[in-house]
Order: sequence, then C-alpha cells, then structure tokens
Amino acid sequence: MTLDLQEVLDFAIDLSKKAGEAIVKGSETRFENAAGFDEKKNTADLVTETDQSTERLVCSAIQAKYPEHKFIGEESWAAGERPQVTDAPTWIIDPIDGTTNFVKGFPFVCISIGFVYQSEPTIGVIYAPFLGYLYAGRKGHGAFVTTPLHPERRALPLVQPQPLSSFKQALIAFEWGSDRSLDVIQKKSRSFQRLVGDRAGGVEGGEMALGVRSMGSAALNFAHVAMGCLDAYWEIGCWAWDVCAGIVIAREAYVCVSYNSGCVVVGSKAHASKTLAEGPFPPPTTPDVLTGRKYLVVRAIGDSSTESGEASQKRLIQTYYEAIEEWDL
Amino acid sequence: MTLDLQEVLDFAIDLSKKAGEAIVKGSETRFENAAGFDEKKNTADLVTETDQSTERLVCSAIQAKYPEHKFIGEESWAAGERPQVTDAPTWIIDPIDGTTNFVKGFPFVCISIGFVYQSEPTIGVIYAPFLGYLYAGRKGHGAFVTTPLHPERRALPLVQPQPLSSFKQALIAFEWGSDRSLDVIQKKSRSFQRLVGDRAGGVEGGEMALGVRSMGSAALNFAHVAMGCLDAYWEIGCWAWDVCAGIVIAREAYVCVSYNSGCVVVGSKAHASKTLAEGPFPPPTTPDVLTGRKYLVVRAIGDSSTESGEASQKRLIQTYYEAIEEWDL
Repeated sequence: MTLDLQEVLDFAIDLSKKAGEAIVKGSETRFENAAGFDEKKNTADLVTETDQSTERLVCSAIQAKYPEHKFIGEESWAAGERPQVTDAPTWIIDPIDGTTNFVKGFPFVCISIGFVYQSEPTIGVIYAPFLGYLYAGRKGHGAFVTTPLHPERRALPLVQPQPLSSFKQALIAFEWGSDRSLDVIQKKSRSFQRLVGDRAGGVEGGEMALGVRSMGSAALNFAHVAMGCLDAYWEIGCWAWDVCAGIVIAREAYVCVSYNSGCVVVGSKAHASKTLAEGPFPPPTTPDVLTGRKYLVVRAIGDSSTESGEASQKRLIQTYYEAIEEWDL
Repeated sequence: MTLDLQEVLDFAIDLSKKAGEAIVKGSETRFENAAGFDEKKNTADLVTETDQSTERLVCSAIQAKYPEHKFIGEESWAAGERPQVTDAPTWIIDPIDGTTNFVKGFPFVCISIGFVYQSEPTIGVIYAPFLGYLYAGRKGHGAFVTTPLHPERRALPLVQPQPLSSFKQALIAFEWGSDRSLDVIQKKSRSFQRLVGDRAGGVEGGEMALGVRSMGSAALNFAHVAMGCLDAYWEIGCWAWDVCAGIVIAREAYVCVSYNSGCVVVGSKAHASKTLAEGPFPPPTTPDVLTGRKYLVVRAIGDSSTESGEASQKRLIQTYYEAIEEWDL
C-alpha cells in the first residue's frame, strides 16, 4: 500500500498544533506552580514534565493513526532507545526543542516533527506556539510558513533568494550548547572568533560575518535559514530529532519559486569536503548525515553577476568549514 | 504646566504601532525591490531607508504633539547631533533596533521609544511588529506586555520572580556587536568563555551560565529580562536610544506584583562596584548611566530560603562583572 504523503503532512501539521497547545498549557501551569526543574546531564540540558507529556501525546496520536510506523522521540530515546534510521517509515520528534527556553519562559520554543520515508527525511513540521510561527515542508513539494501577521500559507523562502557575494554579508547562527568543558569551549571560541573577527583589524583568519544569532533552538535555526533571514547555521552535538524536520523544510525552501537549488545541508567537515570534491550537490540527507550530529545548513542563494547561487553556497560552506574546528562526540 | 504622563504613554504606544506598520511595509517593499543596503561604519552596522523614514514619522508626530520637547533619534544623531540628556523633556528613539535583523528579514526587530522626564527615563515603549509583542512601562506605574497569544495587557514580569540560587541557572544574553577588532574580540571572547565555561571541566573562572541568547536587538534583550525569561543582559557599545525604553520597562517590571525591587540596571564596572559598595540599590538611571554605553541589567529575583532577591541580584552583578573584561569606547 502506498502511503499518502500529503495526508501525512496534514496530520503532522494538525498534530503540531495540538502539541503547541499542550506546550503553552504546560508553560502556564509550570509558572503558576513555580516548580523547579530536574537536571538531566547538567544545568544546560533540562528536561521537564511537559517535554515528556508532549512526547506521549504525539507518540500516541501517531501510533493510533499509523500503527506500523517507527517512532524516535527525544524523551523515549533518553529512556534507552538508540536513534536508528532504517528504511521503515519513521517519525523523528523533538517534543520541545529549546527546552532551556521553555524552562525559562523564553519564547523561542517549538515542537519539531520529522518523518523519514524510504530512508530520507520527507516531511517536516516545526511549530513555535509562543510566536505563532508554523513551518512545514514535504520533499519535492516545497515548504511554507504561516505567521500571526500572515496567517495564509506563504512559500519559503519568503522572497527570491538574494545573491551573497561575501561572507561579510552573512548573518549566521551558532549556539554555545551544553558541553562546556575546556576542549569544546576553546575550539568553539576560536571558531567563533574566526567567524566574526575582522582580519583587517588583526583577528587571524577573521571572516567577519555580518552578525551572529543564538536562539537556543536548532529546529528554529533551521527554519530561519529556510526563511532566508539567516544565511547559515552550524551545529555540533545536537541530534536527529532536533534537525530532521528542519532539514526537510530547509531543503524544500525553493520549489515554489522555481529556483535551481534550495538550502543545502552538509554534515561533518569530511562529509562537506567529499561533497564539494565529488558531488552530488546538494547532497542527499542520508541516514548517516541525519544522525551524524554535525550539521551546516546554508540558505538558497541567488545568482550574482559573477557567480551562480550554487557556487556561492559552495564558497560559503568552504569558508565556514575553514574557520571552524570540529571535535569528537 | 504639568505634563500628563499617562497621555504621553498612550501617545507613545499608539506611535509605536504606527511605526511598526511602517517597518513592516518597509520590509515588504525592500524585499520586493531586492535593493541592496548602504554601509554606515562596516557591514555589521547597517542603515536602511526605512530606518530614516520611520524616524521622520516618529519625530514629526512628536513635534506636532509636543513641540517643546527635545528629540534624540539614532538617525538624526548620526547626522551630527550629540546625544545629550538634560532636564528638558526628551524623547530618545531608535526607529529600528535590530537593523541587521531588519535588513536580513530576521523577525527580531523593534521600534524603541524612550522618554526622559526630569532627567530620568520615565516612559518606555518597545514594539516588535514581526512578532506582535508590545512592551510598555511608566515610571512608578509598572510595565506590561501584549502578545499575539495574549492580546490583553499583562503586568511584567509575567510571574512572581523566581529565586536564582546559582549563576548556573542563569539564561543570559550578550551580542557580538559591530566592533570586530582584535582587542575587542579577544576581550569579548575571554569574557564569554568565563560566563559559559565549566570550571570543573577545566575552564578557568568558568561560571557556566545555563545558556546564552543573542538576538541582535538591545531593546528586545532588555524586554526579555523584563519578562523574566532572561536573567541578565550585558552590553558595551550600544547607545542611549537602544536602551532608554528598555530601562524603563525593565525597572518597572515589578510594581504590579508588589515585589520589593524590579530589574536592576547598572552601567560600567566602576558604576556597579560603587553601587554595590555605597548604594542606593537599585541605583537611579542618571544621565551618565543612560548615555554611558555600558549596561548590565538583571531581572527581578525572588527571595530564596537562604538569600533575599536583592542579595541575589547583587551576587549576580558581582559574578558577571568578575567574569567580563571591559574596553574603552
């Protein structure tokens, strides 16, 4: 039996809104009760009751509708299951991406619902209930966003992708993350300095990005790259459930403007350099990239008078990966 | 003649919405035209046509309503006027705070309208039109927020301020800013490492904040501290128009919950240590602090079993200012 993917998308959108309501209610209850929070690994990696109850809500709904599908959720994984992407239809869910934000009441919080079909991320829905932004995409069918200002669906990216002639025009995102040990903090810090520092002002290797944003949600960072308002987002250490939906939305953020390529997602430095050297470009998101915990996503870029959009994307990946240092996980 | 400050507040709220409409329209025009952007100082410090036209809109409306008031706006200052805060009623405006965000289409953009009366920031309105969040405060009368989810006015902070027993629970904000020269980048970078690094994991002086957010808008960072969802925000290099409205809203984010103190705003390290040593606490925002271009704002903190909220605020200021390095402007 063929799976009706449009029905899966509609179901996922509907489910994201129900989950969003549960998240908002959980937040209000939380702040009424003024309850403390549990610690999972350290204080930067928090788990809340709402996290778990939202995952149960989402998981039950999926099991009822698609009993034969696999389910990988952050919370159930934390309870012992390994994330393994096979060729079975698989839902990959983060019930609350931006848990720290949720705990503190900072509005950059979302539910991230990804669906892998025939081993590829195929459907993605990200809903940020405190902001009222909903992003959704389906492989081969484009992506869209709805916002409080524009409740009608608008295709992503919101405008024809602009050229990007220099890294100095790039607004990028990275996060400080939860691993704060010396080696990681030093590598991050040196990477960040090269990304933002001014070479002409004395910073060795400085590429002087236009600006940096850190919002504390990998899924929403992907969504902002898909919107076209972030030029790139680099991350080491997050998980498939943080990025699966975002990968679909970002990759599909082009179809409706008949642009030659959407956002590009690469994995580790090794994956990126193999891609740049051998292609194909953009590379497919294979299970090893999806679960590889190292990601760089670059927005759709328009052709300039001197360079194609694809060449600009390749150059951006190269610049980024020359500036940063990786570490093992 | 006594000035009706409630009328001033209502006027400012109304004006912020008109400005917000102009910002949204400017954004849509901008992306339709796909125009490039001018460079003011460097690529991280952008100025747009909408910036200037929004300032003219706001300035004209104020001059029509309050012809005897002084006006300090980012764009008119950039054209040659020095920001000087006297005892004349003075409007201090940033027509678009988060200009880089605006240029890129990143939704963290706001109009910031501050009003100084009898030499003290007295009224503040911040409106983020792409998010639909409006924050407003009036000295001695509290502060409130309206959002798309909650269009009715809700007093700030949104909940009774929680205790904060450790810096490890603190969600903080800082920005990479536009000065990317070696000295500044190194000082920032070392400061950031101490704020986020784990001392137990080998990072010297590491205070291991729970997380860091960088949204590219000083005014919205202040607003999030006022909401209670950021614990502190530190900045060097921004201007009075970036913070004037935010200072009022943050300081007033307590009155309606009959709490002993709202957010606390200190200036440079020297100002902070004088305040901690000699009081008064919280310190008034004198013109030299308002225009001093160095700011630390700490949220309202509730009493814990072992420490008063005021003592927690003082400890947070001390921890923060021991971790960071200042530079001259």
